[in-house]
Amino acid sequence: MESSSPQSRPDPTAIGDMPAAEFRRAMHRVADMVADYLENVRDYPVLPKVAPGDVRSALPAEPPARAEPIDTILDDYKRIIEPNVTHWNHPGFMAYFAVTGSGPGILGEALSAALNLNAMLWRTAPAATELEELVCDWLRQMIGLPPEFVGHINDTASVSSLVSLAAARHHVRDSSIRQRGMAGRPDLPPLVIYASEHAHSSIGKAAITLGIGLDNVRHIPADDAFRMRPDALAEAIAQDRAAGRMPMAVVATVGTTSTTSIDPLPAIVEICRRENLWLHVDAAYAGSAAICPEYRAWMDGIEQADSIVFNPHKWLCVPVDCSILLVRDPKQLRDAFSLVPEYLRTSETGVTNLMDYGVQLGRRFRALKVWLVIRTFGVQGLQARIRAHCAMAQELAGHVKNASDFEISAPVPFSTVCFRAVPAGSPEDQDRFNEQLLADINAAGPVFLSHTRLRGRYVLRACIGNLRARPDDVPETWNLIRRCADRLLARTD
Amino acid sequence: MESSSPQSRPDPTAIGDMPAAEFRRAMHRVADMVADYLENVRDYPVLPKVAPGDVRSALPAEPPARAEPIDTILDDYKRIIEPNVTHWNHPGFMAYFAVTGSGPGILGEALSAALNLNAMLWRTAPAATELEELVCDWLRQMIGLPPEFVGHINDTASVSSLVSLAAARHHVRDSSIRQRGMAGRPDLPPLVIYASEHAHSSIGKAAITLGIGLDNVRHIPADDAFRMRPDALAEAIAQDRAAGRMPMAVVATVGTTSTTSIDPLPAIVEICRRENLWLHVDAAYAGSAAICPEYRAWMDGIEQADSIVFNPHKWLCVPVDCSILLVRDPKQLRDAFSLVPEYLRTSETGVTNLMDYGVQLGRRFRALKVWLVIRTFGVQGLQARIRAHCAMAQELAGHVKNASDFEISAPVPFSTVCFRAVPAGSPEDQDRFNEQLLADINAAGPVFLSHTRLRGRYVLRACIGNLRARPDDVPETWNLIRRCADRLLARTD
Repeated sequence: MESSSPQSRPDPTAIGDMPAAEFRRAMHRVADMVADYLENVRDYPVLPKVAPGDVRSALPAEPPARAEPIDTILDDYKRIIEPNVTHWNHPGFMAYFAVTGSGPGILGEALSAALNLNAMLWRTAPAATELEELVCDWLRQMIGLPPEFVGHINDTASVSSLVSLAAARHHVRDSSIRQRGMAGRPDLPPLVIYASEHAHSSIGKAAITLGIGLDNVRHIPADDAFRMRPDALAEAIAQDRAAGRMPMAVVATVGTTSTTSIDPLPAIVEICRRENLWLHVDAAYAGSAAICPEYRAWMDGIEQADSIVFNPHKWLCVPVDCSILLVRDPKQLRDAFSLVPEYLRTSETGVTNLMDYGVQLGRRFRALKVWLVIRTFGVQGLQARIRAHCAMAQELAGHVKNASDFEISAPVPFSTVCFRAVPAGSPEDQDRFNEQLLADINAAGPVFLSHTRLRGRYVLRACIGNLRARPDDVPETWNLIRRCADRLLARTD
Repeated sequence: MESSSPQSRPDPTAIGDMPAAEFRRAMHRVADMVADYLENVRDYPVLPKVAPGDVRSALPAEPPARAEPIDTILDDYKRIIEPNVTHWNHPGFMAYFAVTGSGPGILGEALSAALNLNAMLWRTAPAATELEELVCDWLRQMIGLPPEFVGHINDTASVSSLVSLAAARHHVRDSSIRQRGMAGRPDLPPLVIYASEHAHSSIGKAAITLGIGLDNVRHIPADDAFRMRPDALAEAIAQDRAAGRMPMAVVATVGTTSTTSIDPLPAIVEICRRENLWLHVDAAYAGSAAICPEYRAWMDGIEQADSIVFNPHKWLCVPVDCSILLVRDPKQLRDAFSLVPEYLRTSETGVTNLMDYGVQLGRRFRALKVWLVIRTFGVQGLQARIRAHCAMAQELAGHVKNASDFEISAPVPFSTVCFRAVPAGSPEDQDRFNEQLLADINAAGPVFLSHTRLRGRYVLRACIGNLRARPDDVPETWNLIRRCADRLLARTD
């Protein structure tokens, strides 16, 4: 391929960014759009009234050849996009964990988008690298971990757990998996990961990705309170060893997805020590609650883990995405992942190059929003918000307990309530009733709940955690549930 | 663990988000901060004058217990953070690929942060899911791929390539790696990935993560123009088959990191067909150029790939992060990755649940910024910008060619120029000269270049691609290079 000769210089006004004045004006319009949205999000139903294909068919199938005015595009956003998203920032969004983007978090995202930096190397992002180190250490202190824990930020808990389990795999004795891989090796037995039957699906995905295989994830049975049974864990490890397989890591969950149950860490730590196994703690949701001493007490033993993930984007008012992976020995991640081509070699010594600690080379400046959120609310302010959400969950649980035709399906340690209606009828009838009840509640508009199955039975879940919640939200949510159940009972009678 | 009794209701003004009026005011302040930054970014040196540890030591080591005023925090941002980042949005940032965040992209990020949704299921994000499908199809049309290609958005090319190679691994005949894993299997020989010696380090990281192992990545030698040699590829495959190993995938690069060379796709396609191998094309940088027919012509054969990655966050004016993975048959990704726990089952049928196509469950609303950027500039506007950057690169290359003591080190197909000074002396002397020259140029302030090694020699790289570039930027950059070289020559004489 030949280089062509230099062309005449193009007109910069025709090839630059949006004109500066126009961008400034549009950014102020967006500032108001964002503020309006947060003030008025309650006016929307949580789930939009939209059928599959509606949005796509409202938009041109082909990209526009010519530039369009920014106000036209923002008008389309307001008309076609905003009303047709599921409103995660709506106080009635209780289907999934407590995701609430806060004002300071949004300010941080806007600033971060303008800088548009990539914190892969210290040199390419000195302030971003050091701010990431700093806020990870703030979070370490806030959740009561010893100073040897070092954190970095990933996009999601899926990636944090993947990275942690890759480090665990790398440290399987004499295996050199990084170099030699896992296939075609008579010296390498199947590697096994242990997790509760209630562990998150991301652990299975990590096992797929890492070449461990779903067959080699042991789903350890839980006790009556949905906590991993240490005796069953010990037994499974013994069985695998006896069969010539190689136990590699245990994943304990603090705050399981279905019920927010807490695996018994002290007993699991003891087993991991005895068996010389990597312990990864998935605290994606409930780790945020550890900033309150009374909730941290329930996680005793977490400081003995090799790695811990928790997501400030779940319950610490930080917009998606933001997941913290804290590891006892960061060298173990670096050994597993560091791979530095010539064009990424820099002269600085003694600095952290964040690209060395995981899969992704590209890394947004996520620490900025975390810093803004922690400072804007203060640790005490964040504690107060966690406590308020947990109190709301207790209040909702109280309503459920007082209703003779409902039952609480699992303990409520944090801000998530699992419950179900128990009308007269067979268990299968009850399941159908609850499934229809959920559909009716979600169709009403002000609330979006989800479901799970516990011991085979269909159970509803309400995850509380929005910053814009009001005192009346809990009684109003309960009234809606009650009303839907009564109507359904009347229909089925 | 017992549920405690309901507590008294907390005061919502003490536990809510920032007060609405305060947030609106702060958001307008941030709008001006962002607009000011983009207008004045040239006033900063590209690389900040900061030593390791400076930023962290300027900030408190402990998190604040109490809330702080937002204006204090934004003042600190302006004073401590903004001046101490490397300015990726500075027109003189030429060290890495062409990352330029545009105005419409920033508007999109701000709106997306406010929605704070997670596009994991259609139900949790109808408009975001359908807009992602739409913009991926717009991009497919823009780069001239047939309609069977379906795209989705990942954070980075590292993840896009990882996901693609996981799908390739899943489709190794009869291997059931998803279920059974790779270790302890006498039936499974080592799997092998083929890529150019100039392939990106993310391919090696994918091989580590997937359990393929670095030893099983064949770095195929390149020709004089840094393009993978098909004859050497065919030979490596034959050798591996003869040795009982199992070839799995070929990664062809369109726009290698060091020189932006283009692997010969038609010949590679033919080998992949004959050998029944998955072909992944890494076009992370140069894929954007395919929106111009004259550059698309150089990628003839790309439409025969199984998967293609390119990053709108590199050269399509979209802020980080945004990487598109286009696959010929999305079912292959779904087969490899889909894992749906009960709490993520929804009743909609015939919809796309984007979580099924990769590693991460959590997915930001990245399609929004892509949509804003394409509409704001139009396809023709984006083409004009790509062409302008390539013309600037040719102009810079022209200056280098006209200087008797410099040489162009590689062809310049796109917007990246590899060059070096060739003063009198041994090759090692010349390497030292160029290394010092790079340090001097980068210390000056207005420009940040990087380096690589080609055929063992130290080479400088200038990657052009900023929206805020001005016609004088190329001659001024060349003058700076010239001045630094002259001063260094005078010193070494």
